[in-house]
Amino acid sequence: MIQTPYLLFLGDAPDGLAAKVAQGIKDWRPENCVGQFRMDGCNADMGLPDMTLEEARAAGAKTLVIGVANRGGIISPAWKKVLVMALEEGFDLASGLHNLLRDEPDLVAVAEATGRSLHDVRVPEVDYPIANGEKRRGKRCLAVGTDCSVGKMYTALCLDREMRERGMKATFRATGQTGILITGDGVPLDAVIADFMAGSIEWLTPDNDDDHWDIIEGQGSLFHVSFSGVTMALIHGGQPDALIVCHEPTREHMRGLPSYTLPSLEAVRDMALALARVANPACQVVGYSINTKAMPEDEARAYLADVEARLGLPATDPFRFGAGKLVDALAAI
Amino acid sequence: MIQTPYLLFLGDAPDGLAAKVAQGIKDWRPENCVGQFRMDGCNADMGLPDMTLEEARAAGAKTLVIGVANRGGIISPAWKKVLVMALEEGFDLASGLHNLLRDEPDLVAVAEATGRSLHDVRVPEVDYPIANGEKRRGKRCLAVGTDCSVGKMYTALCLDREMRERGMKATFRATGQTGILITGDGVPLDAVIADFMAGSIEWLTPDNDDDHWDIIEGQGSLFHVSFSGVTMALIHGGQPDALIVCHEPTREHMRGLPSYTLPSLEAVRDMALALARVANPACQVVGYSINTKAMPEDEARAYLADVEARLGLPATDPFRFGAGKLVDALAAI
Repeated sequence: MIQTPYLLFLGDAPDGLAAKVAQGIKDWRPENCVGQFRMDGCNADMGLPDMTLEEARAAGAKTLVIGVANRGGIISPAWKKVLVMALEEGFDLASGLHNLLRDEPDLVAVAEATGRSLHDVRVPEVDYPIANGEKRRGKRCLAVGTDCSVGKMYTALCLDREMRERGMKATFRATGQTGILITGDGVPLDAVIADFMAGSIEWLTPDNDDDHWDIIEGQGSLFHVSFSGVTMALIHGGQPDALIVCHEPTREHMRGLPSYTLPSLEAVRDMALALARVANPACQVVGYSINTKAMPEDEARAYLADVEARLGLPATDPFRFGAGKLVDALAAI
Repeated sequence: MIQTPYLLFLGDAPDGLAAKVAQGIKDWRPENCVGQFRMDGCNADMGLPDMTLEEARAAGAKTLVIGVANRGGIISPAWKKVLVMALEEGFDLASGLHNLLRDEPDLVAVAEATGRSLHDVRVPEVDYPIANGEKRRGKRCLAVGTDCSVGKMYTALCLDREMRERGMKATFRATGQTGILITGDGVPLDAVIADFMAGSIEWLTPDNDDDHWDIIEGQGSLFHVSFSGVTMALIHGGQPDALIVCHEPTREHMRGLPSYTLPSLEAVRDMALALARVANPACQVVGYSINTKAMPEDEARAYLADVEARLGLPATDPFRFGAGKLVDALAAI
């Protein structure tokens, strides 16, 4: 568990895209963001107050989160002075970069001397159990996709936000690096040892109030041959009551697999549902979340209407047009 | 890759069951076994020549394999003297125990001093790639099961033996600890990091002759919620041309999951085939392997006849009645 609130470190980000982790945290958990720290030459701006380390500590910030990625995912030497000063100032550090904070001897030495924590959300920090398959109290919704990177995390975050705005009990459950940094907690599922994957998701979504919803971030796709095992573990470990099928209509082939075409929404619906019912016979597919970012609005609305007519369930782009329809469907379960 | 041939270390095994890893090696790869090493009080016997370390080295043995397991999977202090002497004598050591050879400082020190290798087959020793899904040459057969521990490894080993006896090109591909010790090579799939599971199976079953069969050891079950992600990675990483469905008819519930009943053979057939065709559209289910160990012979034969009549494909217990029918079906692909 990463301590909040955060000071977002934007470093020397050449543009906003390089700071998309920071943008995700600002968009989805603004209450976790005290301010931003920018170095000379930074061209990203989250619209948060620019703060020195001292100012941010005085404002209550507990963790400096590296919200910027550079080529290769390394920890830039240019950042080091700030990171060391932050530890000395009393901040923990959190990073989702491929290269780990814990592999930098200078940071480790200062963290040990100051008693601060280094959080590398790429790697698990928990010994997860083997899944036991026992029915848990509370409700769970899982986003499944036709492919990787079709909007499963954004779908889950939109559902979580809409539910909480309605006063429903809901918790977004992160299963990837960005999601973990956004919320401060979660399971980096792609880095978990095979035998413990489903168990890590059981651990992430424990017994809860009968009217509480865990909104579980999906990963991969049952139809993506590189990562389908990860998706499978989410379906069985999450024992979802509800599935939402996510899709990006302009994708020409499976991400990273040029010779694989995308499955139909029907194929994902049928396959995911049959597998989900092994763990939870009551599971239902409740709707479709379509990432229409690459489509003009009239085309997007026509596509959604077609999906609803063809499949007989609500379809929306929750980020563009709101998650209301999908939350209505979940609330009816 | 573990160097063969082996001297099988039976230690102080209280009975044959405690030495079942050694038994598996002796049963399936007798040509890999130069002899056995037994300590005082050992009640297991593989029927191999009893040898001292010196005799076994003189007979060509390269690796001392720990073929015995004791409670908790630990490396018994009583064995240590022999293990240290073996390293000094020029043996590598190989173990599938839960506790690792590499975590024993005395063994590590002697191995370093003598330049010998410690093989812990519980943990991967390779940086596996992420699966790319590209079609590979050669043919592949995967054993899938209704449950864990229904006989998938024995089925694969029976197929491999029968194929090689017929002069077909075949390689058993181990995906678990016992299989790796039997053959000296393989992927300990349950210990692989999630993102690399399917890639490890692609790595294990590379391009080969068009008429060569990889016979891939299965793991878990699509219907076992603790381990289904591992099974999924085998189905997509292995891109099998042929599936054989394995079952144990007297099992009352899924192994370790008292509230889960076993799926039907039809359910496993349909689910596994639909998923396998994502990676290989030509995949077929070619037959059923039934573990009839717990049934009298007439009952076993009646059960097999019933499966054949109901499902329209060959069914046998390959360990009890031979793998001929299944190999006939594979040879016809």
